[in-house]
Amino acid sequence: MATREQELLQLKELLVDGGTVLLGSDISPNLLSDFIGQDIGFAEAYVKVASGAEVGSVVKFAASHDQPITIRGAGTNLVGSTIPHGGIVLDVSGLNRILELDEENRTILVEPGVLLCDLQQYVEERGLFYPPDPAEKRATIGGNIATNAGGMRAVKYGVTRDFVLGLEVVTATGETVFLGSKCLKDATGLPLKQLLIGSEGTLGVITKCLLRLISKPEATAHALVGFSSLKEAITAVNDLHAANLAPTAIEFVEKKVIAFGESFVQQNFPLPNSIAYLVITFDGPKSELQDKLTRCHEVLASSHSIEFLPLEDPTVANNVWTIRAALAKAVQASGIWEPVDTVVPLSDIASFVEYLEELSAETGVRILAFGHAGDGNVHLCILKDDLPVEAWPQTLDVVLSKLYRRVYQLHGKIAAEHGIGRHKRKYFLQEVNDTELELMRLVKHALDPQNLFNPQSGYTA
Amino acid sequence: MATREQELLQLKELLVDGGTVLLGSDISPNLLSDFIGQDIGFAEAYVKVASGAEVGSVVKFAASHDQPITIRGAGTNLVGSTIPHGGIVLDVSGLNRILELDEENRTILVEPGVLLCDLQQYVEERGLFYPPDPAEKRATIGGNIATNAGGMRAVKYGVTRDFVLGLEVVTATGETVFLGSKCLKDATGLPLKQLLIGSEGTLGVITKCLLRLISKPEATAHALVGFSSLKEAITAVNDLHAANLAPTAIEFVEKKVIAFGESFVQQNFPLPNSIAYLVITFDGPKSELQDKLTRCHEVLASSHSIEFLPLEDPTVANNVWTIRAALAKAVQASGIWEPVDTVVPLSDIASFVEYLEELSAETGVRILAFGHAGDGNVHLCILKDDLPVEAWPQTLDVVLSKLYRRVYQLHGKIAAEHGIGRHKRKYFLQEVNDTELELMRLVKHALDPQNLFNPQSGYTA
Repeated sequence: MATREQELLQLKELLVDGGTVLLGSDISPNLLSDFIGQDIGFAEAYVKVASGAEVGSVVKFAASHDQPITIRGAGTNLVGSTIPHGGIVLDVSGLNRILELDEENRTILVEPGVLLCDLQQYVEERGLFYPPDPAEKRATIGGNIATNAGGMRAVKYGVTRDFVLGLEVVTATGETVFLGSKCLKDATGLPLKQLLIGSEGTLGVITKCLLRLISKPEATAHALVGFSSLKEAITAVNDLHAANLAPTAIEFVEKKVIAFGESFVQQNFPLPNSIAYLVITFDGPKSELQDKLTRCHEVLASSHSIEFLPLEDPTVANNVWTIRAALAKAVQASGIWEPVDTVVPLSDIASFVEYLEELSAETGVRILAFGHAGDGNVHLCILKDDLPVEAWPQTLDVVLSKLYRRVYQLHGKIAAEHGIGRHKRKYFLQEVNDTELELMRLVKHALDPQNLFNPQSGYTA
Repeated sequence: MATREQELLQLKELLVDGGTVLLGSDISPNLLSDFIGQDIGFAEAYVKVASGAEVGSVVKFAASHDQPITIRGAGTNLVGSTIPHGGIVLDVSGLNRILELDEENRTILVEPGVLLCDLQQYVEERGLFYPPDPAEKRATIGGNIATNAGGMRAVKYGVTRDFVLGLEVVTATGETVFLGSKCLKDATGLPLKQLLIGSEGTLGVITKCLLRLISKPEATAHALVGFSSLKEAITAVNDLHAANLAPTAIEFVEKKVIAFGESFVQQNFPLPNSIAYLVITFDGPKSELQDKLTRCHEVLASSHSIEFLPLEDPTVANNVWTIRAALAKAVQASGIWEPVDTVVPLSDIASFVEYLEELSAETGVRILAFGHAGDGNVHLCILKDDLPVEAWPQTLDVVLSKLYRRVYQLHGKIAAEHGIGRHKRKYFLQEVNDTELELMRLVKHALDPQNLFNPQSGYTA
């Protein structure tokens, strides 16, 4: 009988297109973790595939050897999704080709390992536009689809789901199926593609992504608006929505959070006398943008005491966005922290943010808030600071339990765009409706009866 | 032992909120059919429920008595979805209350039996807007969600799916669960709500619908554009997309189709010398619309010989839209016909429409085309005309088989927004990928193991 190692080495023979295998202690710890890097998992084998066909072979191997599969892209996830607990790590980051740009139908077919930044650049150079814009530009498109990533421009354009026309998927039996088409409408059978989007790799492995593009907006204009408090800034968001200005993005951030970003990227944020900010973006025909900025200024100034800075200087604009995009990385560099990705109805953002201050005072833990004010998606960074390492897990658990309970009381959700992964699983299971969870697990069991894909992650049993 | 009739009469005792029951021959034939009315089904019982709780009771009764359930709303479907083959007809059209308008979050909670026209009127009177706009305004919102109805304004705003924030659903075990929330982003567990939308009532009964609204556009402008041929009109659609004018709707229709509508509603369509038309809509701030119409005119006139009529006269505009909206009803009034709801990639609309002329010449059957040119959704009416009734089924089958084969060759779909129901089932099963069908049936079996909901409909086994 073959030893376990010999058995796993059979994987090498399956990788006929150039994929590679590492076993046991040869696997680098950073391939067994997520962006945070606090928890390191363990795996018997790590496979970096070189083709969709190799994905099929690996899945069939895993099924016949009853080895769970943890799917990995660029490893930028924040919730432990890429931390294996045994089995095989299936790395699809090498599947990174752009396969077809169809300019007439405005679609693009790519492999899942293509990075968001590369996709954006590729299409924008050709006058086209892929609207979803999560802060992490070095995430893969496959990862974006697996979490239905949202990002900054969701206010105007919607989330990743709204731009996925089709998916090629390897199922739990190792078969390959294409779900969807280049058609913009589809009522032909169960919407399986929709079920896959946002399923965090629990139902299959994405091997091709057919995405919808739009024409690149002619121009973009930004304004930075300074407020005397975060609550004031948040309250202003509903005024903006009511004014029907169709902003592309409404981001909020506090001055104390900005400080992290400033020192991390060595750039200065404008309006240093304000306490909290909204960064507001408009895009469209050049001729309409000045008018939108003017109306935006009027609407906000009519009921708030503000500093209003149109970001006309490209250097200043670039500083603002660079600092915003670097916030998670800046906090990461500062020490141990926990990222939180809550979403609440727009009407409750202000009271939720007020509650965070109470919670912070009550627990003595710093909570930094920033995020997508236009759609209720409030990102939090919970900082360990000087708390002893051994006290951190319990303190964090108290903070998270109270925090998520409040989110549910407000009819919010604990994951807007990061997913549940391993790290939010406990809090998700505490709060999810029993019937809903049962339905999720019935679907999982139907499509992946061996529980091969990302087991013990998210909603899975 | 109770007779079957006595058994079914127990249903009456379950309807504690005022629902009603009819048995056997007391059920009117129009409650056993669809909009077309050609096929009449049969049912042992018809239940018109008066509450979501009654839906739960009826489903539990059906499960324990192994009675299939055919779900019925306003009965406007065109594909036999509401034609029962035994069991219970569950009519939810009486669940037609508007439950909550939340102006701050711009959401509305309604029961599934609310008619689209009533919803549109209710929100527009309050300065809000529900963008999905299928031609049949007297369809229910529940039916719109069950088929993921698209309609005219999908080009700009998307389809029904894009405006469904939450669904209350009665599952196959009779339990009630709410899926979704007022939040605009959600990556918390499997997207079951997405699976339900467009599932044609095969996975559960919708009892509440939480919908997203937007602010009502300040103004709307329409232009009617006359062309010398349908192919010329269709070709112009891609020119419009390339010009990035963000039209709300681009409808196409032939003069010979318009003639049906004109005589049906007793109104005249303008530009009588053209052979085919595009009706183009823009909405947004009043100040931008004139410019859009001008640019639209320029773009089209630069490469096509056209008649261009801005529909500034409200009476003329109303005539155009009334005639367009009445086309299916007008064809219906003219005799026996088959509605077809194909969608193809934008790049293939012109060649598809050319093929229809070939097919018509080859089979001697008249095929009228109209629909949503902006998104590739081509509606066809296949007319029996003078063909003997006994020859019709076979002739129709020949036409449909060729037609749908061509649709699949073009990587299109046979149902864009009507669903599959019973009437398209044969053609769907001929063409669907085996693995995809198997996945659909695994999901169905997991969530509805007794095959209670709309069995022998759509993709179901």
